[in-house]
Amino acid sequence: MTTHNKHYPSVPRDKENNYTELLAKQRRDFVSQQSGQSGQSGQSGQSGQSGQSGQGVQHIGHYSVKPEDTAGNIENFIGVAQVPIGLAGPILVNGEHASGAFYVPLATTEGTLVASYNRGMRVITAAGGAKVTVVDDAMQRAPVFIFEDARQARQMGEWIEDNFAEIKSQAETTTSVGLLRNIEQYAAARMRYLRFNFTTGDAAGQNMVSKACFVACEWIKANYPYSGLQRYTLSGAMDTDKKHSQLNTLHSRGKRVIAEVTISDQLLRDNLGVSADMLFKMRQISNVGSMLAGSVNNGAHSPNAIAAIFIACGQDAANVAESSAAISFVDVDSEGNYYLAMTIPSLIVATYGGGTALATQKECLELMDCFGEGKVKKLAEIIGATVLAGELSLSAAVLAGDWVSSHDNLGRNR
Amino acid sequence: MTTHNKHYPSVPRDKENNYTELLAKQRRDFVSQQSGQSGQSGQSGQSGQSGQSGQGVQHIGHYSVKPEDTAGNIENFIGVAQVPIGLAGPILVNGEHASGAFYVPLATTEGTLVASYNRGMRVITAAGGAKVTVVDDAMQRAPVFIFEDARQARQMGEWIEDNFAEIKSQAETTTSVGLLRNIEQYAAARMRYLRFNFTTGDAAGQNMVSKACFVACEWIKANYPYSGLQRYTLSGAMDTDKKHSQLNTLHSRGKRVIAEVTISDQLLRDNLGVSADMLFKMRQISNVGSMLAGSVNNGAHSPNAIAAIFIACGQDAANVAESSAAISFVDVDSEGNYYLAMTIPSLIVATYGGGTALATQKECLELMDCFGEGKVKKLAEIIGATVLAGELSLSAAVLAGDWVSSHDNLGRNR
Amino acid sequence: MTTHNKHYPSVPRDKENNYTELLAKQRRDFVSQQSGQSGQSGQSGQSGQSGQSGQGVQHIGHYSVKPEDTAGNIENFIGVAQVPIGLAGPILVNGEHASGAFYVPLATTEGTLVASYNRGMRVITAAGGAKVTVVDDAMQRAPVFIFEDARQARQMGEWIEDNFAEIKSQAETTTSVGLLRNIEQYAAARMRYLRFNFTTGDAAGQNMVSKACFVACEWIKANYPYSGLQRYTLSGAMDTDKKHSQLNTLHSRGKRVIAEVTISDQLLRDNLGVSADMLFKMRQISNVGSMLAGSVNNGAHSPNAIAAIFIACGQDAANVAESSAAISFVDVDSEGNYYLAMTIPSLIVATYGGGTALATQKECLELMDCFGEGKVKKLAEIIGATVLAGELSLSAAVLAGDWVSSHDNLGRNR
Amino acid sequence: MTTHNKHYPSVPRDKENNYTELLAKQRRDFVSQQSGQSGQSGQSGQSGQSGQSGQGVQHIGHYSVKPEDTAGNIENFIGVAQVPIGLAGPILVNGEHASGAFYVPLATTEGTLVASYNRGMRVITAAGGAKVTVVDDAMQRAPVFIFEDARQARQMGEWIEDNFAEIKSQAETTTSVGLLRNIEQYAAARMRYLRFNFTTGDAAGQNMVSKACFVACEWIKANYPYSGLQRYTLSGAMDTDKKHSQLNTLHSRGKRVIAEVTISDQLLRDNLGVSADMLFKMRQISNVGSMLAGSVNNGAHSPNAIAAIFIACGQDAANVAESSAAISFVDVDSEGNYYLAMTIPSLIVATYGGGTALATQKECLELMDCFGEGKVKKLAEIIGATVLAGELSLSAAVLAGDWVSSHDNLGRNR
Repeated sequence: MTTHNKHYPSVPRDKENNYTELLAKQRRDFVSQQSGQSGQSGQSGQSGQSGQSGQGVQHIGHYSVKPEDTAGNIENFIGVAQVPIGLAGPILVNGEHASGAFYVPLATTEGTLVASYNRGMRVITAAGGAKVTVVDDAMQRAPVFIFEDARQARQMGEWIEDNFAEIKSQAETTTSVGLLRNIEQYAAARMRYLRFNFTTGDAAGQNMVSKACFVACEWIKANYPYSGLQRYTLSGAMDTDKKHSQLNTLHSRGKRVIAEVTISDQLLRDNLGVSADMLFKMRQISNVGSMLAGSVNNGAHSPNAIAAIFIACGQDAANVAESSAAISFVDVDSEGNYYLAMTIPSLIVATYGGGTALATQKECLELMDCFGEGKVKKLAEIIGATVLAGELSLSAAVLAGDWVSSHDNLGRNR
Repeated sequence: MTTHNKHYPSVPRDKENNYTELLAKQRRDFVSQQSGQSGQSGQSGQSGQSGQSGQGVQHIGHYSVKPEDTAGNIENFIGVAQVPIGLAGPILVNGEHASGAFYVPLATTEGTLVASYNRGMRVITAAGGAKVTVVDDAMQRAPVFIFEDARQARQMGEWIEDNFAEIKSQAETTTSVGLLRNIEQYAAARMRYLRFNFTTGDAAGQNMVSKACFVACEWIKANYPYSGLQRYTLSGAMDTDKKHSQLNTLHSRGKRVIAEVTISDQLLRDNLGVSADMLFKMRQISNVGSMLAGSVNNGAHSPNAIAAIFIACGQDAANVAESSAAISFVDVDSEGNYYLAMTIPSLIVATYGGGTALATQKECLELMDCFGEGKVKKLAEIIGATVLAGELSLSAAVLAGDWVSSHDNLGRNR
Repeated sequence: MTTHNKHYPSVPRDKENNYTELLAKQRRDFVSQQSGQSGQSGQSGQSGQSGQSGQGVQHIGHYSVKPEDTAGNIENFIGVAQVPIGLAGPILVNGEHASGAFYVPLATTEGTLVASYNRGMRVITAAGGAKVTVVDDAMQRAPVFIFEDARQARQMGEWIEDNFAEIKSQAETTTSVGLLRNIEQYAAARMRYLRFNFTTGDAAGQNMVSKACFVACEWIKANYPYSGLQRYTLSGAMDTDKKHSQLNTLHSRGKRVIAEVTISDQLLRDNLGVSADMLFKMRQISNVGSMLAGSVNNGAHSPNAIAAIFIACGQDAANVAESSAAISFVDVDSEGNYYLAMTIPSLIVATYGGGTALATQKECLELMDCFGEGKVKKLAEIIGATVLAGELSLSAAVLAGDWVSSHDNLGRNR
Repeated sequence: MTTHNKHYPSVPRDKENNYTELLAKQRRDFVSQQSGQSGQSGQSGQSGQSGQSGQGVQHIGHYSVKPEDTAGNIENFIGVAQVPIGLAGPILVNGEHASGAFYVPLATTEGTLVASYNRGMRVITAAGGAKVTVVDDAMQRAPVFIFEDARQARQMGEWIEDNFAEIKSQAETTTSVGLLRNIEQYAAARMRYLRFNFTTGDAAGQNMVSKACFVACEWIKANYPYSGLQRYTLSGAMDTDKKHSQLNTLHSRGKRVIAEVTISDQLLRDNLGVSADMLFKMRQISNVGSMLAGSVNNGAHSPNAIAAIFIACGQDAANVAESSAAISFVDVDSEGNYYLAMTIPSLIVATYGGGTALATQKECLELMDCFGEGKVKKLAEIIGATVLAGELSLSAAVLAGDWVSSHDNLGRNR
């Protein structure tokens, strides 16, 4: 086992003031230059970042955000990705926080995405709008405590329950916003996995709850009266941060959002070329496909809306991992009306903190009056409605394709 | 069931030429105006997009990408999201396609993300680099065929196998790049779920395979010689597009990438303040947490790297849904060296098509010499190495925090 | 759609007194006769229960249980399955309820099963015994309430919490043993899924909780003060009865049992031919296999013990479905001792009710002093210890095979 | 770490001839005596197998199976569990192997189980019978090969494909029945997980495939031409033996059986008191519950039938673990007929080997003409039909309960 001591040049940095246009430019020049020669730095002689791209970066350096405003959002800032924003809407939202018609900015590079959501929005609006409800709300940190045996670990579980008030009080010393709602407990081997659930105001809250949970855990460690505690770690992987889990589907992470709409059969036929009944029937087929596949989402494509709004609005796009889960449910009533509900169990959103105050991101939030205090559930509702629109549009498109092609060959199906 | 007939103003469009600066500006003005008044349009009288944000959009309209160049990537273009890019690296990659030291552009709004990846990259580079291998490659479309009963569906399964060559030939008439590799089959009830696996060159290929699969399915429908076929749909939800599934973990979607590194205990202690043994032990604990939670990723946070590179490099950020799955595996050898491997079963990447040719996106790809033909596996390898760096850095940080705090209170653990 | 009106002979029954030797014999004669001719009754002319087996049933009719004692356990009694019982043990159990050495009756038809458990028991006993702990205990019924929309469903959730005391009181009117511990709630679309958790004394309790939950639900339906409740169903499939679910792994069903043992490296080598380190290492490999497969049990074969004890002891063997989940966890300490823990999240056991009072079943329970009141956790602990023994034995056997074969070919591995 | 050296008496054994009535009796006497005193052997002084049960075992020793006939099925034979058998049927089965009316022996201790299946059988028979089809068939052993890195592991994958014919030939040297059908491959870290799929005639085949796979693996180890192979283990946990996995649901283990029936709305109403439409609607609700719970079976209770037939017919009851997975699918056609299909992806059955030749077990198989050669798919079909009957009966019962209670309180739902 030998370690590598070849030197590769470091990215330019200024320890005192790294968030300046000067440094940004130096880094752009640096990387331009490297991309023209770093191939030689490859240990095998093959090219790494090679020659033909050495003409320098023009567009990355074109931005209106001030480098100093990116402190806290990025390190080694070199410029920006210009991600095209399309405007979808109007969509009529009947939420408890979002009420009225909204135009939704979608940042994506995937053609037809905006058009498809637009189409769904039109039908939903014509049907009277999407009813959207935030039914749960929590952000987690999930430490694990390790004991000599399972019996000691169980004992701690009881102690945690008995001392919840003090643990809560300790955790909340670190934040003026976060509130410790409850602590779930899970037992395996000699470990006790805890899952702290906080409400975090208008922030997504991952850092807030880490800090609060750390203080609570240190207090626990210092005050736990029984023997056997070996150590703890701030995350035992049951948070489950930046990844989907069945646990998140069950107990939510971020906002649990349910978007619903009822659409008449006629409206579906006129606008989407499909009947309520066929949409319903095909959903049964795709549900079986989802179950066979072990899919975390029996709907069509909710992450398309979520990723596009997340990028436009300064959300953490890595949370698409958690937010990509969804449960679709459909029904047709005795009058032939189609009911569609999308349940998003772990939608992680913020209208404060993270990237929300950056230049374009803040503007996008403001376009929907979703920037800042008291707006996070409004944003969640608008995202829920948008997801619903996309689900409707795509599932109809898949089906209508089938429908049309079926017509070409009617003899076969008779 | 009544439908809604209130009128909400439409987003300005020009049917002839919708991709102009003029239209982009009209739409920005429109949405600025709407965000100043659309509250009134709310059916309940509550504000939708309300007043205080009516000062207009300044930053969204600041871009160097040409509106006409966004055709095919966006509809109703109004401007861009400026997503800050930080430069991480160098990271030494020992791939089959990427070889040498790379500087990786990460577009994110989450502070510390770039710094954390940087730290991991430094250690990996010092350890001799990340060995990265693309071990599988396929993009899917998964139609479902519906019969009168399970026996007929089974019969079709045999027919599909017998006629694979012709089906392949039909599918490939639609594309000069895509190749039909194989067709998986899954049976449930009276349905036959097929999963077509294509290689798609340097494109991600979702549209390519849809078209190819559609032609193949129409041919099947027209030529299937036995009775009982009722209908088919182009997706029976086993693709599984824009969502994680166990099926994707098993059979891959996009590239299956494995990144590995071996690091000496000393290097870990000197740079990350943790020992190989403790990292190894704690991973066992978090593996149990992952299993309890039903998590799709027993690692720490691979989507952070993936989302950031996807946004920087014009990838489809909604594919973070699939790409967020990962399998971490660690070992310590008899000399105390730490082996860490990250397996990403469904990394969906492109160096051609999608958003790869947009202004900043192309530049970011070029910074790594990953734009265009023949580069897609190189990009996949660099992403794999970056994921590995983040995994190392964060898992050490979680543990070191525990380690440090343990020191504060040594008496308790003795 | 035509219905079938061919007549097939009915199984002999006596409405007044169906549990007599006379009727049992009549039914045996009937089925013997049918199995000699029912082939003709096949609609297609092919044989169903055909001729060569018509010599009658000899052994099924050989039993010491009295037919009248099977009332409540079986309908249309014709005799018994004679399932061989082997005796494993002694195994030293250090439980809170089971303490001492136990001989465990295992009813199975699979050769080597008893021998393999025996081997593991010997090593565990030599290592000082298995520490076993019941860390959780609950039996569920999970009704679902359906509303007009998600908002109404959420409202009911709050009402359920506010009225828990009364709901508990209503549920407990139906039982002198069952206690309603808590009600979990899960939201999707316009449904509210509740999961009632009861403790049920020494009974498994499925019927007890159904009845209690039904009364509670009827009370809820009658007293729910808000509008929108459409209907409810006593099971919305979140119980999850007779099937494994991640929910059961998280929140347990029946007893959550953790069995632990620490074994010196020397003891492992002397008795099982494997080292602690190799056992540990190979477990990492199989854990990845489990995760890839989406397995509900990362251990080797806990259902072997569970099914065999269930059959011997009058448990409901269908509950192997839930009870088959397990989480194995291993560690090696600094002195080379091997720690193995098996966590069985959903072990469904009874020492009262069900088949526990039948002739041989009661005897088997009594062999372990586990029949009747106050014994259910003792039985759970003994099962946990037995599972642990099997896990140790089989994982060593798989590995030793590898080990031995490796020796044959040492050149290759160097 | 001290080891335990207290002596606990061993179970009586005769190395020469352990399968005699004499030894069986000695062991019964032994365990009777132990159960009267082993409490004292507890290290903590608490009772283990304590006094009150010391009256000896009467019923376990009552059997007609000959002890010598249990060799190969059990070790340390002490007698039998007498598990009551009830007779359900007739059920009309329209299989490819089972055709006609069948009476099915169900060994269980759970009251109402036989009655409930009976009820479902009556309705299915009236509807023209259950159509049952075995659509797939394979038994697995899944070794894992470990390399220095992922690239070497991938290389082996290709070599395995190229050398399949020879590997198959080697594997099949060990068996006159088993045929190696194909080898699945899964990659993670530096491991290559293989999954050998065999057909195994009328045996369940777990031992057959272990032996065949071992020989194949040894041949691979001896003949693999490239460097890097570190070692292999015969099971890398992807078999997945004695546990459910999503992999089994996808690729089957044992027989994949689909049972279907179409029943008129009138027949449902007349016999079960429910309408096709309500059954259909409620299934949608429970599907969502299943998905939320992460359940491996979206049906009601297939393991009830499976466990009962397994015990009666000498199957390995531990395989209820795998066999408990199921996918239910329902539909209602335009004439109101209800279509119900149960897909059992991993039904593990045998009509040869295992416990099939034991006294009562053989009789039960013969009752259905399912003993011995060429009968295994017939048995699988009958089990499939029985599962279908239970699914129908229970889902109707749950719903009718709701229906009836709804009537009590009609005002509320209007």
